[in-house]
Amino acid sequence: MNGDGTLDSLGEDALIARLTEAALEQRGVVVGPGDDCAVVESGVGENEHLLLKTDCLIEGVHFLAGTDPEQVGWKAMCRVLSDIAAMGGTPLHAMITLAIDGARRVSEIEGWYRGMRLAATRFGGVPIVGGETAALKEPGAIISVMMTGRVNCERVISRGGARPGDVIVVTGKLGGSFESGRHLRFCPRLEEGAWFAGLEKELRPTGMMDLSDGLAQDLPRLADRSGGLGYRVDFERLPRHEGVGLESAVGEGEDYELLVTMSQNAWEVVQVEWPFSSCDLSRIGEMHAGGERTKLDGGWDHFRRNSS
Amino acid sequence: MNGDGTLDSLGEDALIARLTEAALEQRGVVVGPGDDCAVVESGVGENEHLLLKTDCLIEGVHFLAGTDPEQVGWKAMCRVLSDIAAMGGTPLHAMITLAIDGARRVSEIEGWYRGMRLAATRFGGVPIVGGETAALKEPGAIISVMMTGRVNCERVISRGGARPGDVIVVTGKLGGSFESGRHLRFCPRLEEGAWFAGLEKELRPTGMMDLSDGLAQDLPRLADRSGGLGYRVDFERLPRHEGVGLESAVGEGEDYELLVTMSQNAWEVVQVEWPFSSCDLSRIGEMHAGGERTKLDGGWDHFRRNSS
Repeated sequence: MNGDGTLDSLGEDALIARLTEAALEQRGVVVGPGDDCAVVESGVGENEHLLLKTDCLIEGVHFLAGTDPEQVGWKAMCRVLSDIAAMGGTPLHAMITLAIDGARRVSEIEGWYRGMRLAATRFGGVPIVGGETAALKEPGAIISVMMTGRVNCERVISRGGARPGDVIVVTGKLGGSFESGRHLRFCPRLEEGAWFAGLEKELRPTGMMDLSDGLAQDLPRLADRSGGLGYRVDFERLPRHEGVGLESAVGEGEDYELLVTMSQNAWEVVQVEWPFSSCDLSRIGEMHAGGERTKLDGGWDHFRRNSS
Repeated sequence: MNGDGTLDSLGEDALIARLTEAALEQRGVVVGPGDDCAVVESGVGENEHLLLKTDCLIEGVHFLAGTDPEQVGWKAMCRVLSDIAAMGGTPLHAMITLAIDGARRVSEIEGWYRGMRLAATRFGGVPIVGGETAALKEPGAIISVMMTGRVNCERVISRGGARPGDVIVVTGKLGGSFESGRHLRFCPRLEEGAWFAGLEKELRPTGMMDLSDGLAQDLPRLADRSGGLGYRVDFERLPRHEGVGLESAVGEGEDYELLVTMSQNAWEVVQVEWPFSSCDLSRIGEMHAGGERTKLDGGWDHFRRNSS
């Protein structure tokens, strides 16, 4: 890949890999770029690490003009909460950055804030402690949410710990998020993520992430971070929402469910002790040594479609 | 102001005031929205608070297309470092969010990162621990930097503590930032801010902020946060860069100098003990009770010009 290509030709993951390969001295960094959150040693309490996450919604990409502003705000806040959940963490504080055109109605912006506050209040009473507004010259809107969280030092679950033989598990059901509108009203899996992180060491997941870009994009990321493992996915075991096709469940994205790997032994216990009766837990495949991987079609790359 | 106006008619400060008036339960929040950084009780160490800041640069607003990408990156990183400086803090970690069109050259994005890394390395060795890239549908670029920092619990200097009779002081010289290109290569006043914060209580500044939008916008903000004090500014005392007119020094913005208030007694000591020989320190006026304020023209409001 030559140095003067465009983003469209390079793709998002390759871009991030190039930008982060020249890492600085990583003072106090437990988990750096490439996971759901960064994990840093800043001691939010005895034995706790600080989680850092930023995420943005772009009008016309992540939501359409005319969408109920409260739902847009809800989604913006819940996306970062979902990343905190995927580290087994507890959310602490949020900051909001808005880049918007000057002709935007104040009532719409207030609607976004109401939605963000609703979600922040419901999932842990997270205070919105500041942020910024900046002017776009052209019509448009970008809502960026930054969040901190905390997680027990001994219980961080990154994307990078899956081992050969591990079972692949997902929470809830997949697919059809856009058509159903679920992408605007989903609930982040904070309790489920914290429950996984709270398991004793032998049962605790080896890898965890949230399914935001679809299994076809996200499972390879987890496998890559875990030393380039292979995987087998049983398509018939994929938990799908009613009326949703396999292609959507594999590749559409925005499910915000947890993708989890754990040992066979852990799975035997976890499926019995799982306390969340309203949230399915499904074994969908296994990790293995060697690079062989079930072909998964689709998945959302911000700069390329169907690039897998 | 009715609820369905546009941003242009409302203005940035009024928007932020409206969005933040319905505050959540502010768990562990020491300084909330409206200061240079948020200050939260997350105990990054014994007796220390956590600072949180987000800031963004927009192509066509904060930098022009075609600007040297390393300088753009330098500016993006130094703007948030300047806000950490304005709280008397020490920077800890940074996260980068890029919203860019897919036709953007990868070499330009790598240039931004080089500039950001240069600044992050020079001012404290701040690790870039993660972030996000998102696709814009139209040509454009937004670079958002999130930063954490730490500050001693007893030594936080907010915008809100100025008292009647306090002296108003600025570091360095003002004006002409755009024409000279200084806005692309300034150095944040981290050492100076930390020196102020380290003074014993009787000498420590009562208020501090960085001059990003110009004295005409920023001094009223400090005065408003300090209970609606008035002020008198001696225009002939304003330290100006060579060849810069008064209007630019008052209203152009992007100086990234520190605006500081302190008691008369403190000023007597501070001007003698000031250890930074390459950085001027100028008394430019006084705060007083009652709302009377020297008329300052200009200053940058992101949604309105010359609104003061």
